[in-house]
Amino acid sequence: MASETETAIKPGCQFASDNTAGACPEALQAFVEANAGSQASYGNDRYTTVVADRLRELFAADCDVYFVFNGTAANSLAVSTCCQPYHSVICSDVAHLETDECGGPEFFSGGAKLLLAGSTHGKLNVASVEELVTRRTDIHYPKPHVLSITQSTEMGTVYSLKELAQLGAAAKRLGLRVHMDGARFANAVASLDAAPGDIIRAAQVDVLCFGGAKIGLPVGEAVLFFDRRLAADFAYRCKQAGQLASKMRFLTAPWLGLLSDSAWLKHARHGNAMAARLAAGLSATPGVDLLHPPDANAVFASLPAAVHQRLNQRGWRYYTFIGLGSARFMCSWATTTAEVDALLHDIRSSATRQASY
Amino acid sequence: MASETETAIKPGCQFASDNTAGACPEALQAFVEANAGSQASYGNDRYTTVVADRLRELFAADCDVYFVFNGTAANSLAVSTCCQPYHSVICSDVAHLETDECGGPEFFSGGAKLLLAGSTHGKLNVASVEELVTRRTDIHYPKPHVLSITQSTEMGTVYSLKELAQLGAAAKRLGLRVHMDGARFANAVASLDAAPGDIIRAAQVDVLCFGGAKIGLPVGEAVLFFDRRLAADFAYRCKQAGQLASKMRFLTAPWLGLLSDSAWLKHARHGNAMAARLAAGLSATPGVDLLHPPDANAVFASLPAAVHQRLNQRGWRYYTFIGLGSARFMCSWATTTAEVDALLHDIRSSATRQASY
Amino acid sequence: MASETETAIKPGCQFASDNTAGACPEALQAFVEANAGSQASYGNDRYTTVVADRLRELFAADCDVYFVFNGTAANSLAVSTCCQPYHSVICSDVAHLETDECGGPEFFSGGAKLLLAGSTHGKLNVASVEELVTRRTDIHYPKPHVLSITQSTEMGTVYSLKELAQLGAAAKRLGLRVHMDGARFANAVASLDAAPGDIIRAAQVDVLCFGGAKIGLPVGEAVLFFDRRLAADFAYRCKQAGQLASKMRFLTAPWLGLLSDSAWLKHARHGNAMAARLAAGLSATPGVDLLHPPDANAVFASLPAAVHQRLNQRGWRYYTFIGLGSARFMCSWATTTAEVDALLHDIRSSATRQASY
Amino acid sequence: MASETETAIKPGCQFASDNTAGACPEALQAFVEANAGSQASYGNDRYTTVVADRLRELFAADCDVYFVFNGTAANSLAVSTCCQPYHSVICSDVAHLETDECGGPEFFSGGAKLLLAGSTHGKLNVASVEELVTRRTDIHYPKPHVLSITQSTEMGTVYSLKELAQLGAAAKRLGLRVHMDGARFANAVASLDAAPGDIIRAAQVDVLCFGGAKIGLPVGEAVLFFDRRLAADFAYRCKQAGQLASKMRFLTAPWLGLLSDSAWLKHARHGNAMAARLAAGLSATPGVDLLHPPDANAVFASLPAAVHQRLNQRGWRYYTFIGLGSARFMCSWATTTAEVDALLHDIRSSATRQASY
Repeated sequence: MASETETAIKPGCQFASDNTAGACPEALQAFVEANAGSQASYGNDRYTTVVADRLRELFAADCDVYFVFNGTAANSLAVSTCCQPYHSVICSDVAHLETDECGGPEFFSGGAKLLLAGSTHGKLNVASVEELVTRRTDIHYPKPHVLSITQSTEMGTVYSLKELAQLGAAAKRLGLRVHMDGARFANAVASLDAAPGDIIRAAQVDVLCFGGAKIGLPVGEAVLFFDRRLAADFAYRCKQAGQLASKMRFLTAPWLGLLSDSAWLKHARHGNAMAARLAAGLSATPGVDLLHPPDANAVFASLPAAVHQRLNQRGWRYYTFIGLGSARFMCSWATTTAEVDALLHDIRSSATRQASY
Repeated sequence: MASETETAIKPGCQFASDNTAGACPEALQAFVEANAGSQASYGNDRYTTVVADRLRELFAADCDVYFVFNGTAANSLAVSTCCQPYHSVICSDVAHLETDECGGPEFFSGGAKLLLAGSTHGKLNVASVEELVTRRTDIHYPKPHVLSITQSTEMGTVYSLKELAQLGAAAKRLGLRVHMDGARFANAVASLDAAPGDIIRAAQVDVLCFGGAKIGLPVGEAVLFFDRRLAADFAYRCKQAGQLASKMRFLTAPWLGLLSDSAWLKHARHGNAMAARLAAGLSATPGVDLLHPPDANAVFASLPAAVHQRLNQRGWRYYTFIGLGSARFMCSWATTTAEVDALLHDIRSSATRQASY
Repeated sequence: MASETETAIKPGCQFASDNTAGACPEALQAFVEANAGSQASYGNDRYTTVVADRLRELFAADCDVYFVFNGTAANSLAVSTCCQPYHSVICSDVAHLETDECGGPEFFSGGAKLLLAGSTHGKLNVASVEELVTRRTDIHYPKPHVLSITQSTEMGTVYSLKELAQLGAAAKRLGLRVHMDGARFANAVASLDAAPGDIIRAAQVDVLCFGGAKIGLPVGEAVLFFDRRLAADFAYRCKQAGQLASKMRFLTAPWLGLLSDSAWLKHARHGNAMAARLAAGLSATPGVDLLHPPDANAVFASLPAAVHQRLNQRGWRYYTFIGLGSARFMCSWATTTAEVDALLHDIRSSATRQASY
Repeated sequence: MASETETAIKPGCQFASDNTAGACPEALQAFVEANAGSQASYGNDRYTTVVADRLRELFAADCDVYFVFNGTAANSLAVSTCCQPYHSVICSDVAHLETDECGGPEFFSGGAKLLLAGSTHGKLNVASVEELVTRRTDIHYPKPHVLSITQSTEMGTVYSLKELAQLGAAAKRLGLRVHMDGARFANAVASLDAAPGDIIRAAQVDVLCFGGAKIGLPVGEAVLFFDRRLAADFAYRCKQAGQLASKMRFLTAPWLGLLSDSAWLKHARHGNAMAARLAAGLSATPGVDLLHPPDANAVFASLPAAVHQRLNQRGWRYYTFIGLGSARFMCSWATTTAEVDALLHDIRSSATRQASY
């Protein structure tokens, strides 16, 4: 994915990513409140314990909970607990793990290889996973040990519980651990209107990386081990890998803000709603095609070159895919209806002008 | 070092570490202000650029500046730029790199070995460094490539500029890169009353890890490359290693607070002054011996067992070293005169009672 | 590639690999002769020095020469000298590096990612290489640093000097180091009838892995650095990575046998001739299609399922590719005309019977 | 240990190492015989299976058996199966693992740290091991997971079965896996006159690296897993790490020669006897002191400087330890009585002259 490198962003023109927004108010307030006084360091503070308990309640599961600084680390460390360097990890050919981690999983795992399964709208299917496991059993081929599922996907789609159940069952049958990249897990929960734990149980998830930054934290992600055996000595792994915060309260207290009154879910629903609004508008625009079902908070669309040009001139920020004419518009907790409508207006006016030639 | 694992800390009883304090007011305010509006992610925001410039000004050097999440990562990644897996890193036998990183340097570097030089009050000397370089030159011994100097040291002492000049010259003569672990660099600057750049030039430092958390940031450290060639592709290294913040503004904006009106130096001086006050009081206490010169913000002392017991009963938090009867009291920007005096009072009353037996 | 796992091989029925043959007579004799008396260990023996000189003569280049145990190590260590963990290595989608090293390059390099370029008959082309370098320049994508070319290729084809010149020039233009996987380099030399150094200079090779085992050594490969700067401290790298033989004479003396009277070239020509004979016979067989030009010592062909079945029954050993109906027949220095003819006879008789249905 | 770097060794003057000898006759003959005909590669040959069975018989244990190229790899890979990167390995301060592997264990394990226990004559004791395990339990200290015992030791001593039983019991009590570095295991067996399996059971060894090269193989070591769970996927680990021989027969067939008629034990006894003869002679020489009990095939002695000088002039090769005046004389299967006596003669004549000053 091409990098979004502009530093000056025109107010209200930002659809590049859900990480260009700041911290949501609930998280910020909790952050500030947690600042008062001394707290034992390295996670021995009172916030960390409480947040871990709240997450266990949320998932209705006796899982082990850890907090790390970012998504690269969360996913790479979680995957590393599921395999050895000579094993392999199956993910989709558009998985963030493969396309946007600069070799992070390979680095943290000490050399585990990613095996790419074909995908449709960002989703894996059982057949392509199974093919990667069964096609070879010789020792020159790194033994598949993990299935990594992104929910919601990099294409803005969401696996149904049934789809997850099929993948989870296949994984277990094939001897694979299940890792879920949940950088946008909240958006998936909002989209499915399911309990978080239902998703976990459907896919038989062993370890989930629950994204915090994209749903409103200033920094940090949670790693939840539903198979607690995988979490043995995980604190040591985090420490060694530079992922143990000394002032841990600043990674964990903001979760309290997010988890209170289901703020996280409210924000996720809002992001999804903004994407739906944008998608609806785009699908009614001549010359514009939606590329994937907008299940969550991202909208992928193909736009005429002239539209891209005009949006760029007017200061809109979003990812483009070179040579493909396609765009990714990402909505967040901070996206407003006015921004969506303004973007739609600019696209429509450009597209109409384009169509009238 | 034994872990400080209590979660509940009695207000005003915290001398365990300078990372048990929260963020200093200046950093917190900058953090909150930076939250408004959208910012490009991954360091392409406006704060990051400004802070890098401000740090270059502070050091009066055209260095390359990066920001990572914590000290383990800062030191491990910095050292990794100076060596290959089959090289070795010389540090003191009490270096944090050796004693408290759970193998972090070995992990990030892909296997580089630490060679331990003897130290006095936490300080290296040229002879012990040179002996490690010259004693063997065969390929079964990992070739020394880096000298790591902690300033201020883990024992609360500070190298003089002359001592640094000797070590720096020796390092360059021996073909070693110079890494400075500056987790408490600010306290060293305050102690020496020197310009930050003077320390760098004296020791011929190639890469400095400038500690942020211990001087008042909520999270994050800066890595400054004075030999810019070492910084080639360092952004990739950070990304792969899980040290690239998506919402980078939250790591960098607080530095603005710290750097404005020399707040960082004010806080460092305060911490040092608190340590000096504590040391002065302890040295006047019967049965208590100072173990190292209190140059910076730490005080190491031997205390009678009964004193330890009583301090513990009264809720004081500090590190102890099993079987040695010694204690480390660490002061920070947040330590108050009242706290120091209260601690001294409790020590003296215990010690006196002890002495009267 | 599916593993060839049978232990009992019917004499004269072995086309599975060129590593199922033993040591060629010249290598074995040199091995036995080198056994007499004491020799300094770890490469400080007299054979190692001589062989390195002989290889420099052969390539008419002042290269640095090292000896390691096998091809996985040779390729992985050589590639590791050309990149850092956060860089990437471009190779073909059928490169042995990608398909048959169980993550070796990722392990030895500490996480460098392989980027796969499309290939035709196992050969890379400039366009697909260039696309991988230019399509992204953001730090989420591991920076391409190495081009790995296999000569002769995994498909039994051989790059012409012109093709190599194009790839080499493109690599240097794009800032890539050139690694050559020469597991079957000897067969390429024999095929092109060029001087070994011509191949190196055409492709601007920085480091070559010159295969020894497949051309008749009992164990061991040579690594030649044409850019000697890359070889800095390579002896340490080998030592750390378990690739420094204590009794090094046994890895190097056999090269003397191979290099004397151009035995290596004679054997390579023989292997190629056997493959040509087999290919000629197959191309005249109804129902059988050659899949790649048989430039070197391998023949790839599609065979009817019934032919596979019958060959299997009669004890022939060769690799098959599941579901594709294709076969790889590999010839070596030890393959005889009689064996080729016997194989052809069995294929023809099966194919004819098949065709007559 | 200082490197022995001379290439020209005067016949009969070699006491530098037991790896300066060639292959013993039994191993060489088996090597040559195994060369005939085709064999399936990668360990699927008939020799490998047979040798594994023979080793299981020798140890009277149903262990898993693998073969790798050298000792660095054997020890590093074996240790890596017993720990994760954030764990630590306890070994003696003179362990080869620590002093002569150029960071190999750290590299293969992905960063596991070695913790050094004090030793006497190269031997560990329970108290120093236990201290390393119990002194800290915080996550900043890599969790001890393995105890590595060298038998016979680097100082030429041999643990008694009782000493091993104490260490093994302590290890298991402390939650440590037991790795035995058996580079000179044969010499220990010969010294103790015990069954190989008795040593294993006494020390509760989980994985043994059984040295081949030093006892007469041209290349290769065996790795035996007595806890077979540790061997899960070890073949993949070897493959990835460049330790899977394609022509495996050449690593395994020579073991047949060694194992037939107990040739390995005969050679080990001979090496030990030569060391005993040398030690007896030295202990009767004025000015010469034995430094360690000569239990196996090494003799450590302090010699006057003038003796070192004269031995050097006369072409004798052995390791010296800078500044200590000490020497290591290593005997092998190939050492002759005449060589020992000639060495003794030269030492005595130098020492006497020295003493007469």
